[in-house]
Amino acid sequence: MTSAISKENNRDHDRVIIFDTTLRDGEQSPGCSMNLDEKLRIAHLLDEMGVDVIEAGFPIASQGDWEAVNEIAKALKNAVICGLSRATKKDIEASATALEPAKQKRIHTFISTSPLHMKYKLQMTPEAVLESVVESVTFARGFTDDVEWSAEDGSRTEDDFLCTCVEAAIKAGATTINIPDTVGYATPDEYAGQISMLINRVPNIDKAKLSVHCHNDLGLAVANSLAGVQAGARQIECTINGIGERAGNAALEEVVMAMRTRADKMPYTNNIKTEMLTRASKTLSTTVGFNVQPNKAIVGANAFAHESGIHQDGMLKNAQTYEIMTPESVGLAKSELVLGKHSGRHALKDKIEELGYDIGDNAFQDLFKRFKDLADKKKEIFDEDIIALVDDEVGRDHDRIKFVALQVKAGSKGPQIADLTIKIDGKEQQTTAQGNGPVDAIFLAMREMVPHDEAVLQLYQVHAVTGGTDAQAEVTVRLEENGKTVSGQGADADTLVASARAYIHALNKLLLKREREKPEGGTP
Amino acid sequence: MTSAISKENNRDHDRVIIFDTTLRDGEQSPGCSMNLDEKLRIAHLLDEMGVDVIEAGFPIASQGDWEAVNEIAKALKNAVICGLSRATKKDIEASATALEPAKQKRIHTFISTSPLHMKYKLQMTPEAVLESVVESVTFARGFTDDVEWSAEDGSRTEDDFLCTCVEAAIKAGATTINIPDTVGYATPDEYAGQISMLINRVPNIDKAKLSVHCHNDLGLAVANSLAGVQAGARQIECTINGIGERAGNAALEEVVMAMRTRADKMPYTNNIKTEMLTRASKTLSTTVGFNVQPNKAIVGANAFAHESGIHQDGMLKNAQTYEIMTPESVGLAKSELVLGKHSGRHALKDKIEELGYDIGDNAFQDLFKRFKDLADKKKEIFDEDIIALVDDEVGRDHDRIKFVALQVKAGSKGPQIADLTIKIDGKEQQTTAQGNGPVDAIFLAMREMVPHDEAVLQLYQVHAVTGGTDAQAEVTVRLEENGKTVSGQGADADTLVASARAYIHALNKLLLKREREKPEGGTP
Repeated sequence: MTSAISKENNRDHDRVIIFDTTLRDGEQSPGCSMNLDEKLRIAHLLDEMGVDVIEAGFPIASQGDWEAVNEIAKALKNAVICGLSRATKKDIEASATALEPAKQKRIHTFISTSPLHMKYKLQMTPEAVLESVVESVTFARGFTDDVEWSAEDGSRTEDDFLCTCVEAAIKAGATTINIPDTVGYATPDEYAGQISMLINRVPNIDKAKLSVHCHNDLGLAVANSLAGVQAGARQIECTINGIGERAGNAALEEVVMAMRTRADKMPYTNNIKTEMLTRASKTLSTTVGFNVQPNKAIVGANAFAHESGIHQDGMLKNAQTYEIMTPESVGLAKSELVLGKHSGRHALKDKIEELGYDIGDNAFQDLFKRFKDLADKKKEIFDEDIIALVDDEVGRDHDRIKFVALQVKAGSKGPQIADLTIKIDGKEQQTTAQGNGPVDAIFLAMREMVPHDEAVLQLYQVHAVTGGTDAQAEVTVRLEENGKTVSGQGADADTLVASARAYIHALNKLLLKREREKPEGGTP
Repeated sequence: MTSAISKENNRDHDRVIIFDTTLRDGEQSPGCSMNLDEKLRIAHLLDEMGVDVIEAGFPIASQGDWEAVNEIAKALKNAVICGLSRATKKDIEASATALEPAKQKRIHTFISTSPLHMKYKLQMTPEAVLESVVESVTFARGFTDDVEWSAEDGSRTEDDFLCTCVEAAIKAGATTINIPDTVGYATPDEYAGQISMLINRVPNIDKAKLSVHCHNDLGLAVANSLAGVQAGARQIECTINGIGERAGNAALEEVVMAMRTRADKMPYTNNIKTEMLTRASKTLSTTVGFNVQPNKAIVGANAFAHESGIHQDGMLKNAQTYEIMTPESVGLAKSELVLGKHSGRHALKDKIEELGYDIGDNAFQDLFKRFKDLADKKKEIFDEDIIALVDDEVGRDHDRIKFVALQVKAGSKGPQIADLTIKIDGKEQQTTAQGNGPVDAIFLAMREMVPHDEAVLQLYQVHAVTGGTDAQAEVTVRLEENGKTVSGQGADADTLVASARAYIHALNKLLLKREREKPEGGTP
């Protein structure tokens, strides 16, 4: 099967393929691990937004990864679904079986080609690496004719050896050749030079698409990606909010908006509906509890805010004086008063659909009740409030632990005491615990009722969903148990209730993770 | 007076001047406004870190700005202190008077030169703008021989007119010529081309230093700054954490570490002690309540974290496989267990000095008491805990409102009640308030005792200082009153006590701001 992309791109030389690796390289970053439901939600969003290739995971890494790639392969309709594999048959088979149901599938296989990585990490000779390139690509082509090969640490690889490997990979059937700047070391002119060098020196380079994959350790990921495209690459590997190992990958929203805004200098087309960028950023942030800083380009809270008097004056006279993109072009709408205490089920359902959610009946009933409670407390209900509630409710039907009630005494006069009631597998339990502070007391109460001694609280953060002292609090909790991390979110007008909800959410994920990772037979 | 910089740079062609505008362009960004004490603290830190030029403010903007520039000019020993001014005598005089006490001073004057800005914002002809350039630079030279001229929206200015303005500014006495990419529109090759064009076409260009000032709207600020230097610019204008209008400015830590890490491609020297970068980032974050995202290059929490198994394996074999900079080079030390409940005054004093703080006796006594309270509650005290306490204590000697005690009842069973005791100008007051949640109740109690009806809560966020359920909470509160914003921080093992402290901190700043901004005679 030839993928739609390769056909289309033979027609359109200036079309840049957007390859999103939020669910693979992004998910590898500390605190960004997602469960199956979360990955599916992000995958659907990426698909709807027009991402060409979705790297859905690294199937050999765990049962959970395999399953996520497999479910995404079953569910999505438009994007090519891609699985990552090292240069071994076992890895490639895991990708192939996981991707089996996909309408369009790509196997991505990689091996390091830099002297440093070959010597220390692989402990292999260049000859052995070259052999491995040919074998892995050939093997992968047995499952699909859309095969991508990556030269890990490509930007620190010697020209001659890189040319040899790229030529061999293409000869073996690779249709995309990716040159990662794995450690975020390259500068734009250097990286562009390497892409040009490959185009000039590799005889069969016209048989494959060149791809860039840049990390942001020196703050240059976006510039390097664009320089690579200007030099002739036609695929950009990137992630929402630039999440990824260490300082992350090139941010999808930045490369796409740079090409759109500067189409005069970068006349390349892509398939992204930019009006969905803000929603994609927010959904990912909420899902993994990873907030972008206010000055993050394109999607930060301040990205379209004009503070100084001089700028405000200019904006009033002509917006273009200080605005090179409109907020609407990235889907940023003004916070609007949307619903109040008299709004009914129908209005809430409409609003939820307008915000891009599709939720089941049970979840909607719970949501409506919580919406009414919130409307009793909070004068004005904004889009963000609804989103926080939906994010707190969706995908929790199967949770084993549910929040019932909480009462807390706290303050500097002490003692700090939490009286918490929860349901575990449908049975109500209640306990009272004393802690260093109210949050500590709540979390200790949870530990008494659901033992998880080895889990460590890695992160606890709260932010107000909108302004005003009556705002809802949105709490993120991250737990780590034996090297595995889970994040939970909770929203409520009461910060402490939101904290309990977030902790329970994280704990439910931890229980699921424990079950899933019990060794089983069958697929890897 | 000829500044030390210009003398030195005649000797060293590859020396890049680091011009920090955290206190001017950075402070202009929403939520980043600082009071005098905060500005002085940041200025001292920048000075110690080796910043060459500190743009300390925009003296004409307000009495507070003038005073901040003036106090910084008095206090600092090493850096050149700079004040911003539009192209008017009034603005330049304000800078000149504010900078009067500085050992080395620079007046920075600017006007827009792009067709769009001249037509809509300035409503001036190019001829009038050119005349204004000459007049303003000439006038500024009357006060100092270190004058910088900026072409606002320079990257969107026509070549011929830009050359004419630059030549005229140099002829009138400007020693630094800055070409801002005001709206973050340029691409690296385009911006480098503009710098080269100026070097090739402006006859007297060798009489001035060229400077870059890049905004990050398209994610290209760092790349553009470095491209400008590679093309011949020798000053970079940047900010800590990249704060600034909209998506911010080029981040100081990123441009500096990129030049250091890639000295092979960018053989430029600068004066920055990179080991202070982490501290500078954290101090600014705490001061303005502006957290960098985990994947922020250089200073993000994940910037040096290696999550995936493949990377961890490589790191164990040879750190260079995945690490291009060491965490030590940016001053990132491992969190270490530092003090416990048996540590005495001397140990705490030593630790505070080691962390780079210099605090007065009164503040130290309060701090020691709070340290002991914390050590009673929390098993392990880390550097971060001490920093949070110090940040919560330093500079609060003159606060009119002080926290005394708090008792809270909250939870889903309601009602949420706060019983708060504070001291106002030394007199104890107590009140009980009911709210939508415990935080709302605390803030309502504050409003009862200290009326501030026009102030709106813009931001409320909490994060745990270190891991573990017994961690201290650090709370940031931002209040806005009639267009002026203030941020307050508070730390405590009890999230609600930390919230009360943060709110009180913000309110103290608001009271100070109200007093300072009462119209007065004298300096602008």
